[in-house]
Amino acid sequence: MAELILVLNAGSSSIKYCAYDTHDDALRLVLRGSLDGLYTAPAFRAMDGTGAEIETRQWAAGSELGHEGAISFLADFLRAHGEGHSLSAVGHRVVHGGVRFTGPERVTEALLAELDTLCPLAPLHQPHNLKPIRILAERRPELPQVACFDTAFHRAQPEVAQAFALPAEVTGRGVRRYGFHGLSYEYIAGVLPSVDAAAAAGRTVVAHLGNGSSMCAMVGGRSVASTMGFTAVDGLPMGTRCGSLDPGVILYLISELGMEARAIEDLIYRKSGLLGVSGVSSDMRALLASDDPRARFAIELYTYRIARELGSLAAAAQGLDALVFTAGIGEHAAPIRERVCQLAAWLGVSIDAAANDSGGPRISPASSPVPVWVVPTNEELMIARHTREVLAAQAR
Amino acid sequence: MAELILVLNAGSSSIKYCAYDTHDDALRLVLRGSLDGLYTAPAFRAMDGTGAEIETRQWAAGSELGHEGAISFLADFLRAHGEGHSLSAVGHRVVHGGVRFTGPERVTEALLAELDTLCPLAPLHQPHNLKPIRILAERRPELPQVACFDTAFHRAQPEVAQAFALPAEVTGRGVRRYGFHGLSYEYIAGVLPSVDAAAAAGRTVVAHLGNGSSMCAMVGGRSVASTMGFTAVDGLPMGTRCGSLDPGVILYLISELGMEARAIEDLIYRKSGLLGVSGVSSDMRALLASDDPRARFAIELYTYRIARELGSLAAAAQGLDALVFTAGIGEHAAPIRERVCQLAAWLGVSIDAAANDSGGPRISPASSPVPVWVVPTNEELMIARHTREVLAAQAR
Repeated sequence: MAELILVLNAGSSSIKYCAYDTHDDALRLVLRGSLDGLYTAPAFRAMDGTGAEIETRQWAAGSELGHEGAISFLADFLRAHGEGHSLSAVGHRVVHGGVRFTGPERVTEALLAELDTLCPLAPLHQPHNLKPIRILAERRPELPQVACFDTAFHRAQPEVAQAFALPAEVTGRGVRRYGFHGLSYEYIAGVLPSVDAAAAAGRTVVAHLGNGSSMCAMVGGRSVASTMGFTAVDGLPMGTRCGSLDPGVILYLISELGMEARAIEDLIYRKSGLLGVSGVSSDMRALLASDDPRARFAIELYTYRIARELGSLAAAAQGLDALVFTAGIGEHAAPIRERVCQLAAWLGVSIDAAANDSGGPRISPASSPVPVWVVPTNEELMIARHTREVLAAQAR
Repeated sequence: MAELILVLNAGSSSIKYCAYDTHDDALRLVLRGSLDGLYTAPAFRAMDGTGAEIETRQWAAGSELGHEGAISFLADFLRAHGEGHSLSAVGHRVVHGGVRFTGPERVTEALLAELDTLCPLAPLHQPHNLKPIRILAERRPELPQVACFDTAFHRAQPEVAQAFALPAEVTGRGVRRYGFHGLSYEYIAGVLPSVDAAAAAGRTVVAHLGNGSSMCAMVGGRSVASTMGFTAVDGLPMGTRCGSLDPGVILYLISELGMEARAIEDLIYRKSGLLGVSGVSSDMRALLASDDPRARFAIELYTYRIARELGSLAAAAQGLDALVFTAGIGEHAAPIRERVCQLAAWLGVSIDAAANDSGGPRISPASSPVPVWVVPTNEELMIARHTREVLAAQAR
């Protein structure tokens, strides 16, 4: 009987899932979808490997499915729609692997206990990432599970790139730059040799521009620096997150405006970024379609900050051999790519307007000293691959 | 009778002063010195224009001179040692000129009232900067005074360089990037045409590296971006300040370590930076002389962060035509300059070791595509010039 690897990405109120056929070397996508509104108004969605919707379900508002109920529902659904496959393993996206984990890890009780200790470093995500792992470990203790970390890829960075200029007793508590979106960058690093061998061997900056946005400088496919720091709020402005912010601003909000930590968290995570600046939307498509001068300014600020970080990351890599755009905005928003490339002309970057409008993959003219690429990312497939490899390595 | 311009730089517990002869076109320095420990153990020091000490005085520990007493003492001292000059005007360093002031301003009651409203933006400095102005305005209402702002030079920056990605209601309260050390950058911009005309007309990054450190990108002598933000804690690591820090770190210190705003302020302003990382000293000379691996790491982190910001600022200026080092570390720490230039080789920067060791002014070889300079700064002279010019313009 054919077997499936299930990939889960669990948040506070939603679970995204993908299922891959392990008998296919390329890991064929069989099913994908999501369960949203787990504690308010649950909604289920499933698509086949081609993206065609095969089922939706909506629970009444006020019903609570929870993570437990969601996992049960999903297991039943997979049994019914798994094309006769059985579930062979589950790979999980886990935001935080701390300082120690530089790659994916097979789930054990000891691992879960260690990952629990990292919850204070990512209180909005880590506890929810771990929930389905625990639920499955209790119900199906024989089912292999693998944890894949958003931080792991960045542990290759030199110490100076990971350090804040804080005293040792604070750094020792884990207050350092971790970087995130590591599964996306790792996927791109894996694809890059077949896209642009020179870029893969050299100094490449990857701009992962989505609702969460960050950038990563790689040298020879290894991370040397990234824009996200201790948390996923640092670096570039995002849909609703502010990105880099003078720490003195937080002290001002407390001392002068009397704000409490929770309200500040709400401000900088959920009310800032493109939404806060534009006053219109956190969605780049809406901003690009808007005539509102504040929407235009939000776009200008977003692209300016990308261009500034590109200079900083080129410094970390000691130069720039290629620029790669990926993720929702990076893959689909041609005007954003165009503006960033204009601002990066001083680095030898230029853009081919027609190639950019058609989405690449190469969007720079042949004459551009620094080639520019659009490469779709696939974090779920990266997790499925990791899961297969970790289990294969253990079976050897 | 000859006349003096007095320049005052008042902090919470000290006043630095310089006196310049206005009958000399170049504004000859006549006297300089300081009053320290105003509320604990006052100490007075005076040097003539050549730097030779001409008087010191130490009050008993526990005595309180205060800002009032300090101004009285200084006025008496100037009368006795002013070489027969009379005091014609006083120029003040004022850290914050807010959004509105793009240059120096003649002091009036209305100006003082407006500058008072900026105290919440710089509570550690602004109130103390304003104290001597009020004292002199009461005692010598006929004496012209001029306020010179550390923020004014940066108001030329484009809006995107001054904005955080925060909602309009927060930005509207003045939460934006002001930049500081503006009087130093303005002085350098004034000197640069005679040092390197191409650099002055082009894209230059100035690294003001002292106990407080920042960098500024200029195009044609105008600020286009700087590393300090809303406060003087942002950007580069400094003697005891952390520089750029993920705002999420502040929320973590509050939520997980139970720290209060005052303790966090103490941590990031007074216990971080070179001191915090090295555990040894905030003084670059001590770190350079130390064999402690933590001291070496502090230096490595400091120079790495300068190199990263150089890339980011070059992006703001759309390239780099020259690099200028100034202020205490920038003017005197050859190994720091050397390391920064090594890390900036990818930008076309190189260094002439012998010229660097002897302090420049040009420390790059003739072959370096991007020339590198050491240019001593002089913020006090900049204030004296502004003071003379503001009064001359009003007299016309």
